Amino acid sequence: MTAPLGLDITLPTAALAARLGELVRLLPGRLTDPVLGGVVVVATPAGVRVASSDHERGFQADLDGLVGSEGSVLVPARPLAETLRSLSDPEVRLVVEGSRLAVRAGRARFALPLMDLAAHPGVAPAPPHRLSVPSAALRGPLAVVAAAASRDDALPVFTGVRISTAGGVLALLASDRFRLAKAEIPLPAARHDAAGLDVLVPAALLAELARQLPRSGEVTLRADADRFALSWEGTLVTTAVLATPFPNSDRLFPSDVDSVLRVDADALSAAVRRAATFGGGRGLLTLVAEDGGVRVLGSDPAVGESEETVKADVTGNRSSRTYQARHLVDALRGFVGRVVELRVPAHERRGAVLTAEPDRDGVRVTHLVAPTRPPAPRD
Amino acid sequence: MTAPLGLDITLPTAALAARLGELVRLLPGRLTDPVLGGVVVVATPAGVRVASSDHERGFQADLDGLVGSEGSVLVPARPLAETLRSLSDPEVRLVVEGSRLAVRAGRARFALPLMDLAAHPGVAPAPPHRLSVPSAALRGPLAVVAAAASRDDALPVFTGVRISTAGGVLALLASDRFRLAKAEIPLPAARHDAAGLDVLVPAALLAELARQLPRSGEVTLRADADRFALSWEGTLVTTAVLATPFPNSDRLFPSDVDSVLRVDADALSAAVRRAATFGGGRGLLTLVAEDGGVRVLGSDPAVGESEETVKADVTGNRSSRTYQARHLVDALRGFVGRVVELRVPAHERRGAVLTAEPDRDGVRVTHLVAPTRPPAPRD
Repeated sequence: MTAPLGLDITLPTAALAARLGELVRLLPGRLTDPVLGGVVVVATPAGVRVASSDHERGFQADLDGLVGSEGSVLVPARPLAETLRSLSDPEVRLVVEGSRLAVRAGRARFALPLMDLAAHPGVAPAPPHRLSVPSAALRGPLAVVAAAASRDDALPVFTGVRISTAGGVLALLASDRFRLAKAEIPLPAARHDAAGLDVLVPAALLAELARQLPRSGEVTLRADADRFALSWEGTLVTTAVLATPFPNSDRLFPSDVDSVLRVDADALSAAVRRAATFGGGRGLLTLVAEDGGVRVLGSDPAVGESEETVKADVTGNRSSRTYQARHLVDALRGFVGRVVELRVPAHERRGAVLTAEPDRDGVRVTHLVAPTRPPAPRD
Repeated sequence: MTAPLGLDITLPTAALAARLGELVRLLPGRLTDPVLGGVVVVATPAGVRVASSDHERGFQADLDGLVGSEGSVLVPARPLAETLRSLSDPEVRLVVEGSRLAVRAGRARFALPLMDLAAHPGVAPAPPHRLSVPSAALRGPLAVVAAAASRDDALPVFTGVRISTAGGVLALLASDRFRLAKAEIPLPAARHDAAGLDVLVPAALLAELARQLPRSGEVTLRADADRFALSWEGTLVTTAVLATPFPNSDRLFPSDVDSVLRVDADALSAAVRRAATFGGGRGLLTLVAEDGGVRVLGSDPAVGESEETVKADVTGNRSSRTYQARHLVDALRGFVGRVVELRVPAHERRGAVLTAEPDRDGVRVTHLVAPTRPPAPRD
């Protein structure tokens, strides 16, 4: 272990605490190697960088700060993040003192043991720049699509979000086999040459990043054959991609439509949530298309029955299908504050399609929800 | 099972949802008898009452409502509470329809199965009125004292709060053997005849009631030999008391004082919370009395060391004692926004006393926190 340089930096507490909070949320829950639980702090004349890596994922964030003395250290990430979060002083000083990194603020000193920086894998360089999109257009659809992926590692392909470009559109796609979510984000004309991006990215990471992305500004997507990265405002998050090719999903979308319901997404979502108490152990609700409304039905032998009609514009035949309440709630999150169109196919076993006009960013979200067998008839 | 009467009532949704929310939080987690998971709804010309009981605890709340038809029913409490909580309509109608209690709001109908009212134990009558105190004076001290009780049922006496009156004061007292909290609430002169109250009440229930008590108005304490009850604004909560006599605790308070620290309770609490990251597996922190301040020290072999000085007025000798961080945080909650006096006895094994001037309601809180052996010295 080489002697660390005498790093000495002063940073705004809130910004450093926020970046470290994001960093630790991306650390794996169980560490195979304690060194991966460390955060690398690097101070150069260009500024300060904090970084972590667990081989699969890498996080780095650049911060503006006063660099009194350059250097690099590795210290336990979680205690550093907790300490920063608890400080109320506007500025904090990080300085190497002997075998410790001292965190100094006001009349407090917190000293974290220096870990062996040489044993840390470091953060892999960013894959090449592919395209940029407005963060506001990406974060909502990313959250909605990532939520449709499976959490079951037994089928890795369904734990990913397929991110691809074609025809001037950035497409996000995920499925857990019982539902499928797709978002199409239009690319500015100047970026149509970004075609050819097609990667499968772990959905759990993207769900977390959807929360971390800023509400404004640009996000850059980067990728090569093995890695995918998002970068924004001095932060770069890299991950290994899933190697499995995503199955063709176009055939899942029904070509025939039996009935079409146009309904306020929030009103339907609220009714589904109310009925969920009556969904039984499997959480099943039945949607019945009627004149001028959609009836939401729940039934559970122990809890009772629920029935609520939500105003809807119904065309075509009167359909009745049973879905998992959770799938409907997740799908309707993609249409908050808008009118959603629910297309029910004639074939009873095929999925219903939820869609809407593109939003003000031109983003179109499409959700396919598979029906399930209705619960046993009421006694 | 007798046919239920055709109850038909209309109530403000928010008030009913709030009372049912409080009711289900007092239901036991695991039901030995499903009938105890029910809520009794009674409509009479006097109004509407909702009630539950699990033999140990009883809850009843009276509500104003429109009684279209009198009656009594028993329905599953949790689904009813969940349904009410999810409704946005200002009024809700509860009406017996066949073997169901229908909950009707807007275009929704939720139907809960009627349970066998005859099998329900009912709610025991309220024990006699003993005294009333302002809710604002009771709720804070009740939360602080109840938090000092033990959660370990192996020693029932330490799971209770002793509630007693003497000398014009209502006293609350609880201990888990490692700390002891006491609150003394002055009684208006007209209520000094309420002497003689002395019961041991389950602390877990009181901790929940401290959250439910209103911020203003009066709370009435009721008790007999077997039961204790609090009532306020049409709500009555009854519980069986713990039969064990509470040990005399006066001898625990040290008579000698080695050093006295006067310190801002919030500043000390914040410093203790920051240092808690460095408290190690046992969560231990050392407080050192110094000239003009108290030093808060933490040390953990893996996480590092912390040291922070909080401005304090120190008299007497320079003491150093180690405490559980959690005990200090709990104790300091009793002195929010105030200066706390920390009296450290000369004997190293005796507890330190935290106290303050009575607050604006005249309430005096005293907390005894036992020291612990300091962690192994730093390497």
